[in-house]
This record gives sequence, structure tokens and C-alpha cells, in this order.
Amino acid sequence: MLEELKKQVCEQNLELVRRGVVIYTWGNVSGIDRESGLVVIKPSGVDYDGMTPEDMVVVDLETGETVEGKWRPSSDTKTHLYLYRSFPEIGGITHTHSVNAVAFAQAGRAILALGTTHADYFYRDIPCTRSLTQEEVEEDYEGNTGKVIAECLNSRKIDPMSVPGILVKNHGPFSWGKDAAASVYHAVVMDTVAEMAFKTLLLNPEASLPLYVSEKHYKRKHGPEAYYGQVKE
Amino acid sequence: MLEELKKQVCEQNLELVRRGVVIYTWGNVSGIDRESGLVVIKPSGVDYDGMTPEDMVVVDLETGETVEGKWRPSSDTKTHLYLYRSFPEIGGITHTHSVNAVAFAQAGRAILALGTTHADYFYRDIPCTRSLTQEEVEEDYEGNTGKVIAECLNSRKIDPMSVPGILVKNHGPFSWGKDAAASVYHAVVMDTVAEMAFKTLLLNPEASLPLYVSEKHYKRKHGPEAYYGQVKE
Amino acid sequence: MLEELKKQVCEQNLELVRRGVVIYTWGNVSGIDRESGLVVIKPSGVDYDGMTPEDMVVVDLETGETVEGKWRPSSDTKTHLYLYRSFPEIGGITHTHSVNAVAFAQAGRAILALGTTHADYFYRDIPCTRSLTQEEVEEDYEGNTGKVIAECLNSRKIDPMSVPGILVKNHGPFSWGKDAAASVYHAVVMDTVAEMAFKTLLLNPEASLPLYVSEKHYKRKHGPEAYYGQVKE
Amino acid sequence: MLEELKKQVCEQNLELVRRGVVIYTWGNVSGIDRESGLVVIKPSGVDYDGMTPEDMVVVDLETGETVEGKWRPSSDTKTHLYLYRSFPEIGGITHTHSVNAVAFAQAGRAILALGTTHADYFYRDIPCTRSLTQEEVEEDYEGNTGKVIAECLNSRKIDPMSVPGILVKNHGPFSWGKDAAASVYHAVVMDTVAEMAFKTLLLNPEASLPLYVSEKHYKRKHGPEAYYGQVKE
Repeated sequence: MLEELKKQVCEQNLELVRRGVVIYTWGNVSGIDRESGLVVIKPSGVDYDGMTPEDMVVVDLETGETVEGKWRPSSDTKTHLYLYRSFPEIGGITHTHSVNAVAFAQAGRAILALGTTHADYFYRDIPCTRSLTQEEVEEDYEGNTGKVIAECLNSRKIDPMSVPGILVKNHGPFSWGKDAAASVYHAVVMDTVAEMAFKTLLLNPEASLPLYVSEKHYKRKHGPEAYYGQVKE
Repeated sequence: MLEELKKQVCEQNLELVRRGVVIYTWGNVSGIDRESGLVVIKPSGVDYDGMTPEDMVVVDLETGETVEGKWRPSSDTKTHLYLYRSFPEIGGITHTHSVNAVAFAQAGRAILALGTTHADYFYRDIPCTRSLTQEEVEEDYEGNTGKVIAECLNSRKIDPMSVPGILVKNHGPFSWGKDAAASVYHAVVMDTVAEMAFKTLLLNPEASLPLYVSEKHYKRKHGPEAYYGQVKE
Repeated sequence: MLEELKKQVCEQNLELVRRGVVIYTWGNVSGIDRESGLVVIKPSGVDYDGMTPEDMVVVDLETGETVEGKWRPSSDTKTHLYLYRSFPEIGGITHTHSVNAVAFAQAGRAILALGTTHADYFYRDIPCTRSLTQEEVEEDYEGNTGKVIAECLNSRKIDPMSVPGILVKNHGPFSWGKDAAASVYHAVVMDTVAEMAFKTLLLNPEASLPLYVSEKHYKRKHGPEAYYGQVKE
Repeated sequence: MLEELKKQVCEQNLELVRRGVVIYTWGNVSGIDRESGLVVIKPSGVDYDGMTPEDMVVVDLETGETVEGKWRPSSDTKTHLYLYRSFPEIGGITHTHSVNAVAFAQAGRAILALGTTHADYFYRDIPCTRSLTQEEVEEDYEGNTGKVIAECLNSRKIDPMSVPGILVKNHGPFSWGKDAAASVYHAVVMDTVAEMAFKTLLLNPEASLPLYVSEKHYKRKHGPEAYYGQVKE
């Protein structure tokens, strides 16, 4: 089932390695088929080397149960499912431990929008969630990780499609998009803008970006007035 | 038309990827044929992978209209055109979002001339422009980006051929040279000297370079007294 | 003798190069056969390029004497032997001069547990030993390096299997695990979490990780309640 | 003439590229034949790509005149010659603009001996020369660069074979050794220990290394009591 989606999700997991944002078995990418309510996700702790679409695991969006696959799904599956249930516009999700984004997550600091590279993909600052409480960790760690992400976005009225990524405090980045490929793309951009922001803040702790520049760049690429790239048919 | 120039410009766009100063579809290189007043530039948002000279777009220097090509030109085309019109000695222009140069642009700081690596290619500090005003952004963002670059160089009486690059505040580096290849070369050098300057300033915030050393190194490579490299025939 | 172990140890020494944690002849990996009390280790100062299992040296755990091999064993052999004798659960040991871990060792600072990447593999902070005294250096430098490592772990009641690595002050990282492959894996993770911690501390010198998050992540992967990865058969 | 030396020097110039310490035509390596008083050096501004032993230039140690070769010698030739004349034990010299070493040179700071990686190859701190005066720059820039290096080593009574490298203020690293290969090796090590020192000093501005540890590590590898590596026959 969902052969095309499994192929895409597998391919995007491998893309994480090629782009240098994961090592070993770290990181995971998923994609959803909204019609059937099924999510395809990377298996837990399996080597990228030699990974094929058949290794992907199909889980049910509502119950979290494995519907197909010879492996256990990623240990972060419940976080992915929580996000898919909270934000119906999301089609793919990526989680990595890329160094620069993790540094901001560990520092408990948002990746501030400091330039147009950021604004081209993220409409505003990429926020950092609060810490999970001890109760949340013990009760349902991965589900509650999804919960604090949703809570952080909702409480700040952030549209997840215009800020397609977040930092989970002391943990690392999650990103998303219309499909698995877009979520990986955003994971790579997030680490790049994190490295830029890290160096910027060391050069000028007071750096900031005028809102109208940020607005302009984002809208050059997104929405009805976009003029970057080619006309979609 | 301009088959040779399209080949050069295509090749130099691919060089950006090989040198590690762009990822995805970021960045763009152009070259000009001064005789015909035509500029060859990378298409907007098209993958480097598989890009061929036929993908290049030919635009008119004065009107900005596409004269030949199956794609839309780079969204930064108007910045390129403004610079070609302002500085007749420029034959090629490169724009990237390379990490170290962007960090200085986001910090709103010039890349100071701190050593001979810098002085070998850039006669003095690489300045950072002012921010565009909200009016400038809304009226003609890309054209006015060219305008603030020209304004910054002219107001400081900087010869663009002796300081072949600049930082646009909160945005990133633009570089140029006698042709497309020289502009890419300067883009790579600019990111390298930015990384050196970043680390230097963390080790010694008061670092500086005696002017007579800078002068010597620049003139070893450029102008009538140059003796670096081989005799040009 | 010990052909399988020599193959493993050789392979893991080469893995150090592929993972970018050593250059030239730096670093060394060993593995132990507990039954025979023999340790297989890299030869001293021999190029990785073209290294084969036959180049490995077999030494006696108790006497340190070479039992088989055409080369001298690694100059750090006595440190490896001290650790194998002190901690019977260790099956493999790795020593590198990887840049980020060395930076912490030279700074005399522990790699603090600041996030879940760390907690996935290291239950708590990765400590930094005290300096060896002049007497310890002159009397038996490599043996006493093992001694200060064991002393540091024991005095803090650290189980070496739950914190499988340490920094030797002004020197660099040693790591270990159930076999040679695990020790190399931990060497690579240690350098990665060191880079993350370095950047985190520059962004927020007060960064810290709630103990219950650390606990959770470690136990997701280790011990009876682990649920990361696939069921071991 | 000197075919074997030309082969070695060419090969070591290419090694600079493979080790990532130079880009474009930056950097240069030379080797000397003490018997004939002839120095083989890289040509000035010629691409590494496709460089062959026939491209090397042979110059006279005393007069600096080209004895053989179709190209101009490196613009830094007079610095190399000054060092060969000042220190008869030197057999090869390398100059690069590697990022981390340049950062210290631009900051005007020595690369302090902070750990055993440094002490394995450099007996003490790697010093940074004074600036050349304006007169020295104008009169004979490259020759006087050699002079300030020799002056710096001599005034501190540093044996160039035990500290086989130096930083020229605002410029970058020069390194040397018994032959061209050793000088390149030291150039790579110098950039690596510079990166380690940079990160160490950001983590702990007061970091230092006990002299007896430095002494021990250096002597493990060098001199009559060395026991690192294999017995030389």
C-alpha cells in the first residue's frame, strides 16, 4: 500500500544524509496520505545505508498502530502524529539533530529572523518551545512533545505553513511542509539560517531585521504576489 | 544568440555549487555583452543539477525585458542591471547567500581588511550598505537594492574594480569583476575572508591592518606594478 | 590468532578516518578478547591508508607485552590496558584528537549534558580529568593517564557503560563500549555533542538540561525499558 | 635537473589542495637541494589542477635567479630563500592562507601550546612576528618577511626544528621541516591546532598547558628518547 508515498519518504530520509544534517540512524522523515489517514515513517534505529521503500512503516493517524511494515516505526512517531492531527495542512514532517539548530534549542533561544535568507522561507522568528514538565515527560514523552509544539504555535498565532519549523527546548528542530520533500528542505534551511544567526549574534548581539524587509522577501516567494521561480501551470 | 556567454555564465553558476557557496537554487551569476547591451543571467528558482547553457535567460540592459530564453530570469535581475548600468567596467556579477558573508551583512558590519588574504583581492574594507527604506522596498525592491549598492560605493569614492564586492544589509554579498568567472572568484574569496575576519574579531576585537601592508599586497597583484602570477601576453 | 577481532579493530580504525575524527596517523582503536586476556590494537604511527588486519598488534592485558604483530603497538597502549583492567565490562576503546572534544579538554571543562543528543548516549556530563602531576608524567605517562581516567570515573561513581567517554585534561577524548565499533561510535557522538555544547554555551552561558529529560532520553535507548530501535532477538 | 625534488615539491603542492588548506592558486611549497644550493618552488599564480613536476621552478639559493623553468617562481620566493639561508637544517617550506592560522595571524596572537596535539609537533607556542615597518615593506617586502621570521625565532632562541612554524602578523602561517612533505604536514597540523586553540580560548580564556606535559609529549615523538612510531632503520 501507498507505494508512491513510501518511495518519497524513503528518498527524503536518504536526502537527510546527503545534505549532512544527520549521521548514523539519527533523524526521521514522514509523509501523510490524508485520504486514507495513514502516515508513512522511517523505521526506528535502522541504518540509512541500504534503506529501501519496503523498510518504511505505515501507521494509523488516529490510533498510532502499525498497519504495515516489518519494523517498529521511529520512536518519535507520536510527535509526528500529534502534529498531523493538529495541523491538517501539513503533508510531511522532518526531525533532525543538526548541529546549529540544536545549539539554539539547547540554549533555549529562538532563531531570530535576522536576514532575507531566513525570510525567504520563514515568515518570522523560529520559536523555541517551553520545556516539557516532568509529568509530561513521564506520562507520554513523544505525544507531549507534539503538544508543546502545537501549543507554542497556537499561543503565538503562528500559521505553521508560514513558519514551517520549530525548536523543541533542549532537544532539536522539527520542520514540516506540504510534503516530505518540503519538510526536509526546511530542515536544511533551518540549520543554515541557524548557523548564520549564530555567527551574526557573535558579531552583533543587537542585530535585527526591519519587518518590511522580512515581509517583502517572504512574499516574493509565497502567496498570491510571489514572483520568485517559474509560473506554476 | 550569445552562445559563448551563455556557456560561461552557466558554467559559473555551476561553479557556485562546486565551491560550496550556494545550496538548492540559491544564488545567481550573470555576464554582460557590452556591445549589444544584453545580459545573460540564471533563470529564477531552477535547479543547478542538469542546468545547461540553453537554460540561461538573455535580458536587455536598459529595459530589463527578456530577449531570449524559456524561463523567467533570476528575481534579482534588476539589481544586476542597475549595477551594470552604474559601473561600465563590470563584466560579470554574482550574488550568493554564503554563510560567513551573510553573517556580516546581518550584523550590519563591514568585512574589515584585517590581513593580506583580503588585501590581495579587496583594496580596502568590504562595506555594508544601509538598509533600504520601507518606500524603497515597496516601490522597487530589486532595483533599489542596486541603487543602495551604487550609492554606498559612490559616496565613499570606492572604485568597484578595486573593491569588487559589497554586503547588502540584512541580505548578503554581491560581487563582480571583469567577467562572470571573476565575479564568482570574488564571491568565494569574500566568504573566505569573512570567515577569517569573524574568527579574528573573536580572538581580538581591536585587530587592524597597517594601510601600507594592504597597499603593498593589493599592488603585488593589481595594476602596472603587479608581479604576482605570470606575464600576460 | 584472533583473526576476527583483528579484522574488527582494523575496520574500526579505518572508520575513524571516514568519520573525519582523525587525520594522518592520529588516534587509535583497540578491542579485547576477555577469554584469552589479549588486546588487539593499532600499530604506532602507521598510515591508515592501506592498513590491513595483519598490521594490528596483539598485546597481553596483564604484562603489556606484544604477543603477535610486526609493528610496535600504539604509544597509548598502556592507557588502553589500564582501562580494560579497571573496567571488565569494556570491550573496545577509542582515542582521538577530534577538534571539538579536544577544545573542551584543553579548556579543562566537562562537556555538559545540555540536550537530548547527549542524553541519548551519555547519561550525564562527560567529565574532564584532573591534570597528571609531574611525577605521574615522568614515571609512567600512559599508564597514569589510564589511572586518572579510572580515578575520575570512580570518585564520581560513574558507571563507564552509561557515560562511555571522558576527556583527559589538555589532551583529548577517550571513549569505549561493548566492542571496538561501539567505542568509535561514541567517539564520533562525543565530538558532535562537544560541537553542539560549544555553540550552545556561546549562545547561552547558563544553558542547562532538566535531569528528568536527560533520564528519559537515556532510558529510551538503554536498559530494560528501552524502546528505541528494533527488538533484539 | 633535480627531477626527484621537482616531483616531491609538485606532489606536496597538490597535497595542500587535498588537505583543504588552500584554494585556487593560494599557497606554495618549496624544497632545497643543499648540495647544489638550488631551491625548487611552485610557479606563481598557476592552477594546481593539472600541475606537473615540469611546472616547478628552480632558483639559486644565493642570487634568487631562475636557473630552470618555464614560469616565474612564486611571488613569495624571497621569503623562502631567506629562511633557507638563515636555517641550514630546513629542507622544505610551506606557506598557506589556511583559515584558522590566518585568524591568529590577523589577531596578532601566538597559537598558544594548550594541549598535547600541539606539543606532539610544536615544542612551545607558535609565535606571531611583529609587523614589518613601512620601510621594510617598500624596500623588499618578501625578503623582509623572511627577516622578521628569522628575527622572531632568533630573539626568542627558538630552534626552528622544534617549533617548525610561525605566524607572520596580518599575513598567515609559514611552516618548514626536513623536507617539503614535512613542511606541508606541519602546515596542516598548525591549522588544526589553531582551530583547537580558537575554540579552547572561547571556552576558557585562561586555558594553559603545564610545561612538563608539553615536554613529555614532544619528547615521545622527537629526539633520542622518542618511542612513538616504529624503529627507524
